[in-house]
Amino acid sequence: MLINISIDSDFSIHNIPFGIFSTAGNTPRVGVAIGEHILDLVALAKTGVFDFDISVLDRKYLNEFISLGKPITGKVRTDIQDWLQKDDSPISAEMLVAQSDATLHMPVRVGDYTDFYSSIEHATNVGKMFRDPENALLPNWKHIPVGYHGRASSIVVSGTDIKRPKGQVMPKGADKPVYKASGRLDFELEMAFIIGKESQLGEPITTEAAPDHIFGMVLFNDWSARDIQKWEYVPLGPFLGKNFASSVSPWVVTMEALEQFKVEGPTQEPVVQPYLAYQGQHNYDINLEVGLTPDNSKETIVSKSNYKYMYWNMVQQLAHHTVNGCNVKVGDMLASGTISGKTTNSYGSMLEISWSGANPITLKTGERRTFIEDNDTITLRGFAKKDGKRVGFGEVSGKILPNT
Amino acid sequence: MLINISIDSDFSIHNIPFGIFSTAGNTPRVGVAIGEHILDLVALAKTGVFDFDISVLDRKYLNEFISLGKPITGKVRTDIQDWLQKDDSPISAEMLVAQSDATLHMPVRVGDYTDFYSSIEHATNVGKMFRDPENALLPNWKHIPVGYHGRASSIVVSGTDIKRPKGQVMPKGADKPVYKASGRLDFELEMAFIIGKESQLGEPITTEAAPDHIFGMVLFNDWSARDIQKWEYVPLGPFLGKNFASSVSPWVVTMEALEQFKVEGPTQEPVVQPYLAYQGQHNYDINLEVGLTPDNSKETIVSKSNYKYMYWNMVQQLAHHTVNGCNVKVGDMLASGTISGKTTNSYGSMLEISWSGANPITLKTGERRTFIEDNDTITLRGFAKKDGKRVGFGEVSGKILPNT
Repeated sequence: MLINISIDSDFSIHNIPFGIFSTAGNTPRVGVAIGEHILDLVALAKTGVFDFDISVLDRKYLNEFISLGKPITGKVRTDIQDWLQKDDSPISAEMLVAQSDATLHMPVRVGDYTDFYSSIEHATNVGKMFRDPENALLPNWKHIPVGYHGRASSIVVSGTDIKRPKGQVMPKGADKPVYKASGRLDFELEMAFIIGKESQLGEPITTEAAPDHIFGMVLFNDWSARDIQKWEYVPLGPFLGKNFASSVSPWVVTMEALEQFKVEGPTQEPVVQPYLAYQGQHNYDINLEVGLTPDNSKETIVSKSNYKYMYWNMVQQLAHHTVNGCNVKVGDMLASGTISGKTTNSYGSMLEISWSGANPITLKTGERRTFIEDNDTITLRGFAKKDGKRVGFGEVSGKILPNT
Repeated sequence: MLINISIDSDFSIHNIPFGIFSTAGNTPRVGVAIGEHILDLVALAKTGVFDFDISVLDRKYLNEFISLGKPITGKVRTDIQDWLQKDDSPISAEMLVAQSDATLHMPVRVGDYTDFYSSIEHATNVGKMFRDPENALLPNWKHIPVGYHGRASSIVVSGTDIKRPKGQVMPKGADKPVYKASGRLDFELEMAFIIGKESQLGEPITTEAAPDHIFGMVLFNDWSARDIQKWEYVPLGPFLGKNFASSVSPWVVTMEALEQFKVEGPTQEPVVQPYLAYQGQHNYDINLEVGLTPDNSKETIVSKSNYKYMYWNMVQQLAHHTVNGCNVKVGDMLASGTISGKTTNSYGSMLEISWSGANPITLKTGERRTFIEDNDTITLRGFAKKDGKRVGFGEVSGKILPNT
């Protein structure tokens, strides 16, 4: 069937992202976002158009569908593109659900979650604030895509409220820590990629093989409690300052849909180790923004950034992650780290935007912010656009609830 | 039926640990170790003695069985104890499999894996070697059970060979890193506990409620590549130096079985935050040892330690982990960190035993070691014993293969 989609829609015919949705009448299942609708793949499958085990569509996570492999999932995508542009096709109006009538769920069952630190602007800003302004980047930063393991259980889908975390912080000048609700709650503007093909323990994935293991991407908000993080993170890294929640966008945009938005990455100097060298382009021109909305009020865009600023790209991150033989599984999520640009209005966290609280920003409402206040909603958005073709991620949104 | 068990067996009538095994004729399923045998719970269930959904026993992980809850899993254990001491019982000889005829598998599907750093002797040793001998413990160490997230996908069961990891290291005095196989490969003598009851995002688990969420324990070898770790770990913590593999023992010893081995923990000074205070005893007197066996040769015991040395206990670790609202799931694994005693022969890693390579040890074979060499096998063992009752963990063993 032919379908009308607004030219401004993130979910154009060029996109066809996969996600998990439910409705009043139906359990969670695989769907495709198209304009303001969702195409129910369980309903479509009943017409007999697919020649794989269609039970993988009637699941509450995409993992089993993704595990079919790119030759199959890629063909599902291109077939749907084709069918949506034909009058006579297996797709009919009753397979379409209005997004406003559906509940969106976590798209994948995350096995392991890794967070990188791959924006040179972000790493430099943090180094200037917390370490040495003259030597902001640590010696290893330009040699390895620095990363650490995060918490998978607390990754939640857009729309989930987040309770302000409590924990230990060490007040300036105090001689012992106090237990309190975080006073420096932050977002981090990130994107994450999702593993689509597992690897075996002891077998590294080369930069050349890496694209075959990457299914698609989502927006990722790595909520951070800066005061808790600061007290705990030496020597073993961030823990409770991060693991109370991370929020992701519900639609997984495939690498096939993003292919046309590839751009050159930055020059890497010093030259990287051979196992981190790569062929072709692996950065992507994806416009990103962050909105902050006080309770029942107007949104202010507090940052506009771009995924193309990344110093280390996904194939390098994955090659590094597995060079020691660490294995990956379908559904694993690997996040970029905060994506900051060169200017204050492109920084990807309140920590950087307010320069650790020194420079409050003024919102449209006239209120000021250094960090996130109770009942503020943070919304990340992202889209790529070229030659009139738009492929977007929708948004990931989360509201901070008080913790008294 | 009555069964004869050697008085020295780890798997006495007082133990009844759960695990996953398979045989030539049968797929992986839940079993109980008893002496040198395994009781097949799928076979036992066919007699109709259990009044829960017995399909949870015919699975390749314990997660669904554990999820039944302690009132049920605890009764399974005490019923089996009872039946094994009676002539007339539902257990018959054909339900018993010789352990030598069975393959043991990963006992649980690990959701998230966390590693703590809770031995004061270990943290002090590491601090002396790598930081300041005069201020070996960092300021936060006595206030928080320091921990970090590790990799779940690469946790393997005892008997799995481990390929020596490759990665970037920064040689002493060099001006740029090199890519090579780790030259400082180490074990870490640890124990881990397994979550038996999930919690909800935003809802902390108190120290009082913590025992209800802990199902049981295993031995845990946190393999570590010290040279890779040293170059990568600032500022975000250990990553590739750890995530190439961790090995666990196959039998999960329940907290019920360990109850009688509880002992007082060390005095904690300064006094901990109220959310970390606890009632009762939560340390356990569990004898631990580490054997190093060169290829086709004799084993040398390189360390004898004890789990009771832990400064921070499990209920404190779990209360801390969730105080910010982080949720846990059934099958999550939380490891202790290296368990070192006060003397060199009780240190829980080669890093400490050889004092970062300065003091090689001599093996029974006459060979010397600072770190682990290719084809060495490392075996961790643990058992508790009191009033003639022995409850043991068996062993976790792993051989390091060359990586050329």
